[in-house]
This record gives sequence, C-alpha cells and structure tokens, in this order.
Amino acid sequence: MECDDYGLTRTLERENLNLNPLQRGGVLPAEAREALYEFSDGYSICDYCEGRLDQIKKPDINRFLDDLADFINIDLVRTVHGAREGKFAVMHALCNKGDTIIVDGNAHYTTHLAAERNHLKIIETPNNGHPTFEIKPETYKQTLEDAIDKTEIKLAVLTHVDGDYGNLTNAKAIASTCKKLGVPLLLNCAYSMGRMPIDAKDIGADFIVGSGHKSMAASGPIGVLGMTSEWEDTVLKRSERHEKKEIEMLGCTSRGAPIATLMASFPHVKERVQRWDEEVKKTRHFVKEMEKLGEIIQLGVKPKEHDLVRFETPIFDNIARSHPRRGFFLYEELKRRRIVGIKRGQTRWFKCSVYSMTMEQIEYIINTFKDIIKKYQP
Amino acid sequence: MECDDYGLTRTLERENLNLNPLQRGGVLPAEAREALYEFSDGYSICDYCEGRLDQIKKPDINRFLDDLADFINIDLVRTVHGAREGKFAVMHALCNKGDTIIVDGNAHYTTHLAAERNHLKIIETPNNGHPTFEIKPETYKQTLEDAIDKTEIKLAVLTHVDGDYGNLTNAKAIASTCKKLGVPLLLNCAYSMGRMPIDAKDIGADFIVGSGHKSMAASGPIGVLGMTSEWEDTVLKRSERHEKKEIEMLGCTSRGAPIATLMASFPHVKERVQRWDEEVKKTRHFVKEMEKLGEIIQLGVKPKEHDLVRFETPIFDNIARSHPRRGFFLYEELKRRRIVGIKRGQTRWFKCSVYSMTMEQIEYIINTFKDIIKKYQP
Repeated sequence: MECDDYGLTRTLERENLNLNPLQRGGVLPAEAREALYEFSDGYSICDYCEGRLDQIKKPDINRFLDDLADFINIDLVRTVHGAREGKFAVMHALCNKGDTIIVDGNAHYTTHLAAERNHLKIIETPNNGHPTFEIKPETYKQTLEDAIDKTEIKLAVLTHVDGDYGNLTNAKAIASTCKKLGVPLLLNCAYSMGRMPIDAKDIGADFIVGSGHKSMAASGPIGVLGMTSEWEDTVLKRSERHEKKEIEMLGCTSRGAPIATLMASFPHVKERVQRWDEEVKKTRHFVKEMEKLGEIIQLGVKPKEHDLVRFETPIFDNIARSHPRRGFFLYEELKRRRIVGIKRGQTRWFKCSVYSMTMEQIEYIINTFKDIIKKYQP
Repeated sequence: MECDDYGLTRTLERENLNLNPLQRGGVLPAEAREALYEFSDGYSICDYCEGRLDQIKKPDINRFLDDLADFINIDLVRTVHGAREGKFAVMHALCNKGDTIIVDGNAHYTTHLAAERNHLKIIETPNNGHPTFEIKPETYKQTLEDAIDKTEIKLAVLTHVDGDYGNLTNAKAIASTCKKLGVPLLLNCAYSMGRMPIDAKDIGADFIVGSGHKSMAASGPIGVLGMTSEWEDTVLKRSERHEKKEIEMLGCTSRGAPIATLMASFPHVKERVQRWDEEVKKTRHFVKEMEKLGEIIQLGVKPKEHDLVRFETPIFDNIARSHPRRGFFLYEELKRRRIVGIKRGQTRWFKCSVYSMTMEQIEYIINTFKDIIKKYQP
C-alpha cells in the first residue's frame, strides 16, 4: 500500500562509512543478527519466564547478568531500556521531588531530562572551557563542597566519557571525593561501557549505566544498570502486592529482541574492549592526519583518550561561505564518496568517530577530506 | 566460548503450536522480519533524526504516528517501551505522590506496579467473582462515586481486555461515567489494540495504551500511548532546558529496531483487525469443543468476545493426582505432540489462545486434548 510505505530500508550502514559516533559502537556482529532473527517475535524471551526477567534460564539471562556484572566489576546489574532510563530509575529511587543533585557540565541532555522528570534541582560542575572543555576533579570537588554547604545533595552524576568532546573524566578521583563527602555516585558510561574496560569497583562508583545500542553492539533500546549491593534494597525494591516484581523496573524491562542481541554480542564486546588501546591509537592517528590538513583543530583533551572526536573546522566554514550549496557542500561531497554521519549543513565543527574501522578505511576518510579541501582551494 | 553459550536459540514458535496468549499477537509477519534485519544496528532509526524521534522522516516515523492515531481514532500518539511504561508516564504526569486512582479488579499487575512506582493509592472496582469475573459498569460507577466522596480521584484506569479471563469490558459505559464525574480515563488495550478494532473517541477514553509485542505483531519492547489533545501539554510537556525534548519520554523512547517492526507490521495489523469477528468465531468453536470433552469449563464472560480463554480443568487435575509425573504430565503430553504455551505443572486451570491459528491447527489441538483424556480414562 502506498500510504504504508514508511521507507523502511536502511542501506546507510551497509553502503557507506559512517562517522556518526552514536552509531559506531552499536553495529551488530553476525551472531547478534542471528539472535535477532531467533528472538524477533513479540515477547520471545519470555517462553520460560517464571515471573522475573532477570531470572530466566532459557535463554540464560540469569547467568548473563552475572557475567555482565563481572565484566564491569559491580555487584549486580539489570537491563533497562537505555542509559537514560537507568539514570531515571536511580534518581527516582533515591530522590524526592525538589531534591538537589550534582552533575558535570558535559552531561548528556538525558541526564538533565531524567532529573527534570523527577522534579530535581541540578547543580552543575562547569568544564574548563575552550579548547579542552575538561571536567577537573578539583572543580567537581569544589562545586560539590559548596553545594553541600547550602543543601543536601542526594546524588552525584558524572559522565564517564561525554558525547560532546569525547573527554574521559577522572572518575576515580571524583568517586573518591563523593565517597568522602557521603554522596552516592552514578557514572554514565553510555560512551565507554562496551568500548573500553570498565572497573566500577576500582573507580568506586555506586551506580553505573551503559547503553547497549550506543556502545555494546546491541539492537536498541537496551541499557545496563549496575549497582553495589548496598543499594539493592533501595533501587530494586520489590512490590508489596506482587512480591517477585521490582518496582523501579515495572516488573520487567527488556522483554524482547534487544536483550538477545546484547547477550549474543557479549563475547564480541568482551574481546573488543581488550583492544581498546588500538582504537585509541587509530583515533590519535586520524586526529593527527586531519589536523595536518590545516584549519582543522581537535577540541577536547589532547591526546585523545576516546574515539569520539570533535573538530573545529574553519577551513570548511570558509569554503561554505562562497559555495553555491553553502553549508550543505561538505555533507554532499562526503556522501558522494560514500562517507556519512556528519550532519547536513554543518561545516564550522563536527563530531566524528572511526571506531572499529580498519586503517585502510581511516586512510580513505583522511584522503577524502584532503581531496575535498584541494578541490576548493587553489 | 563455553561460558558465553546462553542458549540463544528459539525453536519453540517455529516447531510447535504455541497456546500462550502472551505470544499469539506478537508473531512477526515476513515484512517485519525484513525491517528487523534492516534496522538491527544500535540506533539504526536515528540516522536522520533532528532531535525528536516522533518527527523523524526517514524512516517516516512522523507519518506512521499520524496513521497510528487514525487507526485507534485518538488525537495523538507516541511510542513508549510498552503498555506499562505508557501507564507509568500518564500516572507520573497527572498525579503526585500520595494521590489516589481507581482501577478495575482485573487490572494487569503492571497497572499496580506503575501506581506503586508513582507512590499512588489504589481503589479497586471488584469483579463479580466466579465464574464470569466481570467488571460491571454499574460496579465501576458505584466504586468511583464512593471514592470521590472520600477523596480526589486523579485518574481512572480500565483494562479493556484483561489477561486473566479475556473479558472485554464495556469501556464506553465506564468512560461515560468517568466523564460525568470529571475523572480522566486511561484504557489499557494491551490485549486489544492490534487484535480488534479500537475507536478511542467513540469509547471516550482520554488515554489509551497498547502493546506492540503483545498484540501488534512487533518485536518487543514497544508500546503505544495515545491521548486526546487536551492532555498534550500535561503528558508531553517539553523540557525547559532542551526545548525540543518531551520530559515524560526522556527525549526519545523507542530508539531502535522494535519501532521498525511496529511500522512494518502495521498494514498486516490493520488488515487483521478487520477479521476480528472470525477470530472470535474460532475461539468460540474451540471453547465449545473443549467443553464437550467434559470437566473443562470456560471461565469469564460467555460467549467469548476475545481469544484469551481461561479454562478450569478438573479433568486434568484428577489425572495428575495419580500420574507418576503429577502435574507435569499435561505439559509433557502436549509437548510430545508439539503443543506448547501451557505452563509446566499446571492442570487445575490454564489460559490459552488460538488467535491467528488455522481451523486445521485448532482441530488438531482439540483432538490432542481429546487423545490425552482418552489415554488416561478407561
């Protein structure tokens, strides 16, 4: 039917090199595609459920969650619908309307929304501004101490790696501050869990959230919520009426295919985080070569400690000024050469990632940018 | 790796006739399996996002949501992670901690959990007990009137078709009562939307939730939340800081494959609800033939108006008493004959559904039950 053709094809990832950082860590390996096929139907993972998703033995969600907890070294985990839903659940369980939390100035918008949905006040630890936009542990400490002087701080949230600059925060130092000041810490690992090794115990976080679709090679929507056992009774409190069911989880969360893909991808993910150093090396090479092209400046901490890169690109902005297609030229020139993932119309700056690409692909991308510059500069 | 083998195969639906009512409406048609394949990767539907999931044009989520609103005849819809998350969002937006809501006595446990998570008090409209367990409009009216005399009732929840008896409630009559008494009504259509025609305007509901994985041939987790436009500002209130983002949705909800399957299945679903009368006819035939076997009694309203059937089965319970495998015999006898979906160990009663099965399959199921009875009765 004409009216039902919603354009449900997606060749973008198959036919192009996708620089969108949001998409780089969510590409499924073959085994996860198989799992998706097996568990495609509605409540497919619920065939052998006895009342609790996390206790299902076939497929072995129960054991998987234990392995996942080991993987990030935290006492226990649940799957949620995404990192944002995990943040909401922790805030909802720990805070009351009108309470105050502290967050870092590079927090994802969903941290703000999770707080807003919970009617919480936010105090922000600023980053140190252009060009590195760092969240310094001493600034976090100062902001938290000042905040505590004024009001009770119910929760501290820290973005492990932020989505604007790809800066890796010193979570261990900040966790230590939070512990000393008696404020539980929620670490948002949406851009790190599944990409790089995470040791929540070593860091000292009370809560940790991750994103299956962002960084764990899973089909969306799915997230990971980990916590230390001292918080189990608060966050995983059971219903009085339905005693098996956990209230914050509304009984069950990931009742479908995404959890099957998260499970199927897990061996792949465990293996790839061991190769994180190589990814960082590739990113640094990419940044170095891009900066060589001139008037392309990497923002955020240098050298890169994460694959998400933000470039300031006056060179492309200058071309755009006199180009008949204006800001769209860059997107179109790249698209023509099978490179996508940079927003249409953007030339002053852009975010990108070459995570999991081969060196050949990275060289091709660098050379493409070089060619585009050459084409427009005499 | 041995330790990573979580048993991620699911032959149950492929190799058996599945009587589990939870699974009957969530089987994907071929076109949805294709969509799942196309949109398998992480944030696959977000390639062309400009900040709002519901406004994405490629795939055309924006137009799909309009079509979906037309389909159930309500002003506007959003996708959520499931019916329970939809109920939670409505309660969260309308109520404050300590508020009271009214629900029907056949409500799904997730209605209770959504209320409990919101710290709401529940007043229940009882059903009329054995054997029909009906929610009578006059009882709902009486309970609501009595409740209003004592306290403010912020919301009324009604289960359109319940998951225990498969009773279809007189939602129109109850909606009319709610309107007269000035209480907004949330209709839980998890077991009806996508199976039978729904006309929210005709019913007079303010909110309506549906379940993609339960009844709309979609991969889980995904649900539908519909509302009249008068509630838009309350439930879909935007963030002050991130002005495009809807707070109760935490920005975006179904960011992945499930929404692609819901969209791909939509023509199939629209077509099948037109054949709802045939499904009811098949169910009634199934019930009639099962009851003929003796000591098998259909509970709930007669004749059936929905495919979910609950049988009291003293005949199987009697066999179980002297069977060496006790209560497990029924499950095992059925499994051997490629019929699944009745819980292991259950013989006193069970729930089942023959939704979307062919008459041949239904006859096979009836004959199988007949054979099992014959085998154990001299």
